[in-house]
Amino acid sequence: MGEDLILADPPIRVALEEDLGIGDITTDAIIDPGIEGKAVLEARERIVLAGLPVFNRTFNLLSTGIDFENHYKDGQIVPAGGVICHLSGPLCVILKAERTALNFIQRMSGTATLTREYVDRAGSKKVKVLDTRKTAPGLRVFDKYAVRMGGGFNHRFGLYDGILIKDNHISAAGSISKALELARKNAPHNIMLEVETENLGGVEEAVEAGADIILLDNMSHDEIRKAVNMVAGRAMLEVSGGVNLENIGEIARTGVHFISVGALTHSARAVDLGLEVIS
Amino acid sequence: MGEDLILADPPIRVALEEDLGIGDITTDAIIDPGIEGKAVLEARERIVLAGLPVFNRTFNLLSTGIDFENHYKDGQIVPAGGVICHLSGPLCVILKAERTALNFIQRMSGTATLTREYVDRAGSKKVKVLDTRKTAPGLRVFDKYAVRMGGGFNHRFGLYDGILIKDNHISAAGSISKALELARKNAPHNIMLEVETENLGGVEEAVEAGADIILLDNMSHDEIRKAVNMVAGRAMLEVSGGVNLENIGEIARTGVHFISVGALTHSARAVDLGLEVIS
Amino acid sequence: MGEDLILADPPIRVALEEDLGIGDITTDAIIDPGIEGKAVLEARERIVLAGLPVFNRTFNLLSTGIDFENHYKDGQIVPAGGVICHLSGPLCVILKAERTALNFIQRMSGTATLTREYVDRAGSKKVKVLDTRKTAPGLRVFDKYAVRMGGGFNHRFGLYDGILIKDNHISAAGSISKALELARKNAPHNIMLEVETENLGGVEEAVEAGADIILLDNMSHDEIRKAVNMVAGRAMLEVSGGVNLENIGEIARTGVHFISVGALTHSARAVDLGLEVIS
Amino acid sequence: MGEDLILADPPIRVALEEDLGIGDITTDAIIDPGIEGKAVLEARERIVLAGLPVFNRTFNLLSTGIDFENHYKDGQIVPAGGVICHLSGPLCVILKAERTALNFIQRMSGTATLTREYVDRAGSKKVKVLDTRKTAPGLRVFDKYAVRMGGGFNHRFGLYDGILIKDNHISAAGSISKALELARKNAPHNIMLEVETENLGGVEEAVEAGADIILLDNMSHDEIRKAVNMVAGRAMLEVSGGVNLENIGEIARTGVHFISVGALTHSARAVDLGLEVIS
Amino acid sequence: MGEDLILADPPIRVALEEDLGIGDITTDAIIDPGIEGKAVLEARERIVLAGLPVFNRTFNLLSTGIDFENHYKDGQIVPAGGVICHLSGPLCVILKAERTALNFIQRMSGTATLTREYVDRAGSKKVKVLDTRKTAPGLRVFDKYAVRMGGGFNHRFGLYDGILIKDNHISAAGSISKALELARKNAPHNIMLEVETENLGGVEEAVEAGADIILLDNMSHDEIRKAVNMVAGRAMLEVSGGVNLENIGEIARTGVHFISVGALTHSARAVDLGLEVIS
Amino acid sequence: MGEDLILADPPIRVALEEDLGIGDITTDAIIDPGIEGKAVLEARERIVLAGLPVFNRTFNLLSTGIDFENHYKDGQIVPAGGVICHLSGPLCVILKAERTALNFIQRMSGTATLTREYVDRAGSKKVKVLDTRKTAPGLRVFDKYAVRMGGGFNHRFGLYDGILIKDNHISAAGSISKALELARKNAPHNIMLEVETENLGGVEEAVEAGADIILLDNMSHDEIRKAVNMVAGRAMLEVSGGVNLENIGEIARTGVHFISVGALTHSARAVDLGLEVIS
Repeated sequence: MGEDLILADPPIRVALEEDLGIGDITTDAIIDPGIEGKAVLEARERIVLAGLPVFNRTFNLLSTGIDFENHYKDGQIVPAGGVICHLSGPLCVILKAERTALNFIQRMSGTATLTREYVDRAGSKKVKVLDTRKTAPGLRVFDKYAVRMGGGFNHRFGLYDGILIKDNHISAAGSISKALELARKNAPHNIMLEVETENLGGVEEAVEAGADIILLDNMSHDEIRKAVNMVAGRAMLEVSGGVNLENIGEIARTGVHFISVGALTHSARAVDLGLEVIS
Repeated sequence: MGEDLILADPPIRVALEEDLGIGDITTDAIIDPGIEGKAVLEARERIVLAGLPVFNRTFNLLSTGIDFENHYKDGQIVPAGGVICHLSGPLCVILKAERTALNFIQRMSGTATLTREYVDRAGSKKVKVLDTRKTAPGLRVFDKYAVRMGGGFNHRFGLYDGILIKDNHISAAGSISKALELARKNAPHNIMLEVETENLGGVEEAVEAGADIILLDNMSHDEIRKAVNMVAGRAMLEVSGGVNLENIGEIARTGVHFISVGALTHSARAVDLGLEVIS
Repeated sequence: MGEDLILADPPIRVALEEDLGIGDITTDAIIDPGIEGKAVLEARERIVLAGLPVFNRTFNLLSTGIDFENHYKDGQIVPAGGVICHLSGPLCVILKAERTALNFIQRMSGTATLTREYVDRAGSKKVKVLDTRKTAPGLRVFDKYAVRMGGGFNHRFGLYDGILIKDNHISAAGSISKALELARKNAPHNIMLEVETENLGGVEEAVEAGADIILLDNMSHDEIRKAVNMVAGRAMLEVSGGVNLENIGEIARTGVHFISVGALTHSARAVDLGLEVIS
Repeated sequence: MGEDLILADPPIRVALEEDLGIGDITTDAIIDPGIEGKAVLEARERIVLAGLPVFNRTFNLLSTGIDFENHYKDGQIVPAGGVICHLSGPLCVILKAERTALNFIQRMSGTATLTREYVDRAGSKKVKVLDTRKTAPGLRVFDKYAVRMGGGFNHRFGLYDGILIKDNHISAAGSISKALELARKNAPHNIMLEVETENLGGVEEAVEAGADIILLDNMSHDEIRKAVNMVAGRAMLEVSGGVNLENIGEIARTGVHFISVGALTHSARAVDLGLEVIS
Repeated sequence: MGEDLILADPPIRVALEEDLGIGDITTDAIIDPGIEGKAVLEARERIVLAGLPVFNRTFNLLSTGIDFENHYKDGQIVPAGGVICHLSGPLCVILKAERTALNFIQRMSGTATLTREYVDRAGSKKVKVLDTRKTAPGLRVFDKYAVRMGGGFNHRFGLYDGILIKDNHISAAGSISKALELARKNAPHNIMLEVETENLGGVEEAVEAGADIILLDNMSHDEIRKAVNMVAGRAMLEVSGGVNLENIGEIARTGVHFISVGALTHSARAVDLGLEVIS
Repeated sequence: MGEDLILADPPIRVALEEDLGIGDITTDAIIDPGIEGKAVLEARERIVLAGLPVFNRTFNLLSTGIDFENHYKDGQIVPAGGVICHLSGPLCVILKAERTALNFIQRMSGTATLTREYVDRAGSKKVKVLDTRKTAPGLRVFDKYAVRMGGGFNHRFGLYDGILIKDNHISAAGSISKALELARKNAPHNIMLEVETENLGGVEEAVEAGADIILLDNMSHDEIRKAVNMVAGRAMLEVSGGVNLENIGEIARTGVHFISVGALTHSARAVDLGLEVIS
């Protein structure tokens, strides 16, 4: 969300057009376009900030006449009542872009805040908390960025930049080892081979067939511990399924490398931020 | 989401491209394109269904070769374990569109299910539960459709199709009555005039100045009851702010016409649906 | 057409590309890109100006190197021979954007000028002259803006921001009152209910069923007067059909609230403006 | 507008989206999506038809479920009261696409009808009536097609497919002959060299410098006749400026090859067509 | 290029519009749209075929009325004189899409043919011939597909799906091991770490710091052999720089795993294919 | 590629998005966004430069923070080792746009360099070396611009701005003269009539029927000389087919006006340019 922000303009523009349509009929009827205004963006609860450059950019796509003074950076914790940014410029522009800008930053900070909670509960720097592809359609770049701001890490971005051999691939190929063989032969040479399995037999087969990463899907904590012992460092291990804030600490202590959590992106709530016009 | 679905194709296409990028490197490496498959979409919890036509369309945008047998319609309740739809066609197409299609229908059904809960708790057909503009950027058409499927009603779609005079408009105009006068003069003649206020004095001024709808923002239940009595049918009343599943019933019983709930769209969680490949 | 102009860029860009294609082969062959030029935009007849920001923006989308000195604002009357604006910058840019920029401003000023004529002939500030949806495909935002600049008002922008119950809706519903009932139940709560009818019986039924606005379609002046008396302020009245510059004054004097005129946008002629390169 | 119609889809889609936005709130509230309807498109005045394939395509972009029986082809004269086409399919689709489809065909037939009038008044098959680049922004392909349907011919489509040396080019180059020399050297070899001039001296210079076509701009009929005699077949001659239905016949009889008329596209009115739902 | 072909439509459409613009003025002037035609696509030299589905799709984007009988599949060798496909449908459609369709298939087959030559000269199934990111802007998906059809393999598709640590990254980080450490910490966990180096010291440092793949840039064959011995299977090795048809065999015999060749995509010539209209 | 560059932004943006996708995972992992860098673009072989404005623009579309000092202009010869431009700005932006920018300028300079070679070998200013429509799909505007920079001239840009009557048109029309008659009647009046033929009989028929240009396709040098004598200035002559660097001089000496060479655009190789980060 630095210089790459330029490439993120299209979805921001779509969102502005979605809200503005042919214009803000209330503001256009009541407020003189010449009036200048100031506003302040505040956190009404403790959050991990994510999306401030997107918030800024939303206003500036509508008018380059809005100036910002940002007091925090993405990834930082803002306490309840903390002032995130001051903005100034034509009042009607502030009012027209307000809701769209907030919709971005409230969602993104919601995801970052939830991610941070999972990361803190995991309690170890040795394990990486990963997201999934369970994101809002068309908004994956924002959702995954927010996960990073919360201290999480991104799993593959899409079907194109990661190999994950699932049950359907395995049954089509005939076996785990046969599926791995096909992937090694046909898939890009620079991407690790990850296999998903629900039982320890699968773990054994995968590690022997040379999997780089094994995804332990919906296994009990006991099975996870057995898998860690069985693999003994010959492959990296990822846990998914049934992970929540209560059990992530225990899972992390099993010694797996990665824990992936769909809820980070598919069920985060918007955090409470407010934009107040001042003076 | 009937014939208008054609106009919803662009965001679905964006979402497919976001996930597929230059291809599904796992499936392309392992699964022969000629293999046919069947799959079943099941509810793993009790839901109000929303987004089945979008789910169907996602597969068909990738290939017209996928056929569907739908067993429910949007707006219906699907019990835990209920089979929503059977699909058949090339296995690789099913696998490639699966996640994108699920991301749509899980979000949409999540919103519909939460909306239904609010509507049921409101407990009266006389009050309409409304959504807000606090939607996922670029996905408003899907979010608002889901609210309707859950038994809620849509507030204005954007800034262009509703007049809502807020505090900033009022202070720029000088007073509620002055703001209403400007709106009556300049805004479209066929759209009702709604004013937002936080106190009973504002309610009195708004109703006297001819507001059609008054939005009672963050008032106590006691104040709401006083506002209902004071207005006595001269304007419609809407409540917003601090509404939750616990208090919506009591608010509904005050006799207001509308209760708007941002959480319907900004904080619904994805419901648990599963797509299983069979045979 | 203020800060919203940014959102109007796509149609301007389409128009530029339509005219320029792969380049201006005459200018590129003959004129050195380094030559600077000045030009003046003049009115060759008395007009109501509309579209000057679009005119300016057209040049600036091609090159930010063109500067403008605008002598009038949209909505003002420019006498025959009046100088609307001076522009200066690379001569080749002026020549390349000239026709596209003129096509916008000549159409828009044509619509504004015709609208002003209808408004003047209506002769009363109590009646609002409205446009319709009979606009040039893809150019509605420009056409409706021009109507406002001419002193007219906009009817609904599209099918999405206004309710207009026509004969086909009525016959599908069974009756005017049944149609109104369905609209009240299903349509957005903040948009007024307008019903179109061709006879006084329909007016009576509509007003009794609670229509907010009644559209008197193709009625004689005598019938219009009867409708005004019959309704007696219980609903707003709009006249459409067969309105022209000769009869709009008489229609206005009947006391209706709105007169809608398709010709404002579907049959306005381009006004005569000239861009002269000077020195 | 045959197989090329596929390439014309984008502007039709833009126009549909412009009118439909997020949906037809009247029709969606009142009419059951399952109801089938039939409708008839009639001419309410004598017209030259243009745009029937676009009219058809507009409905079909919204739904492939609309069927048509066309009774005329573009370019034919339809008498007042003539039935142009029958259509059948879901009533709500008919109502939703109606206005957009009519806006296209009424404009296009308006241009074709006016063009035919100019062609008929010109009175000779030896002279070609041409259009100009004075078209509605973004709709040139439709406007120019309509001119052809009215019996006119298209001048260059844009700046890229025709050479027209105007006063600014001439003064930048130094003289007509110098401008022609530059164009012959630098411009595409397969496009004829046309020069615009306002006086007989310019005609003489242009023909001697080898212009293929000379545009006589705003000359009197007497001057035009002198130019025809002077050139004596050494170049083709085009007349523009001040052409109207009254004088085009006399201009045609001077023996020039082309008469170009901006009014064909910038000031044609929409013809009166009606779509009636039947049964 | 199977079901994914739908996602490749946008560039094909851009190419068609680029060539067709507002129409084929030669064909439209001369050929009756009702005339049917047949044509045959032939190879005028021995080629490896790539792009036949794109060739087919180009015609069908213009009209669904063109039928094909394909006699080869992508990846097969077509001898000089071989008939690749028969097509039939409206003659004017065949002529209008011909050049665009040929431009795709001639480029793609050119790349496939050149790739096959490199693969054959490499002479061993143990070494994979890779492409690079040196592709025609906007056409990478076609270029990389063609490489696969020629028996080559794709290196990373873009900057987003592969890690390649180059000299600038190394100097910014301070050393190879420091750069690897940062990548291991920050970059996606499922993508292998590749380091580029120009000397044996770098190879040693990279392999000790845990690089998965080492790119030997512009090394002599002797140095390459030394690197293979030094690494002894602890990392995979890739060679790039100065590879040509003459020396690829010798490079392959050094025992490296990958040889990447920019020329496959940046300097392949179009092969000679002809489309002949028959009967 | 001057002020028109703005209109060329869409393909540059597509190319950037193609390479960057969701980000440069190597650079983002290793390089601090705050680091500034400088780089130099050098020619590693003697070239004719084409595409420097596109090279510059590619970086600036990603970030306006990159500054350039250009030492050559398009169309100039740069010797091996010549420094084309210095650039400075954020190092990560330089690295992210580098490959895309190089892909444009290397292809374009490759085409310009090859064109110059053909032009030099033709050896006469009287004959124009023309390109064809055999360009990379979607990149025609860049390819044809590069030809002009190399001293060549552009044949028609697409099917819409030139008339070229080929064998299929002739056989559909019945004869060369019949085809010319149809084109003269129906095609734009300002575009010359060109006919392609493979034999001297066709040349004779074409010139007698009034063709402006005759394309001699795949004729022997002897036949070409006979055609020149036979036509004796009554039409312009173009040669195509089998032209290469060895024979273009002899063809030029026959006295034809144009020689068109598909290889200029369909088979030019990328020239060797390097971007080195300095200090």
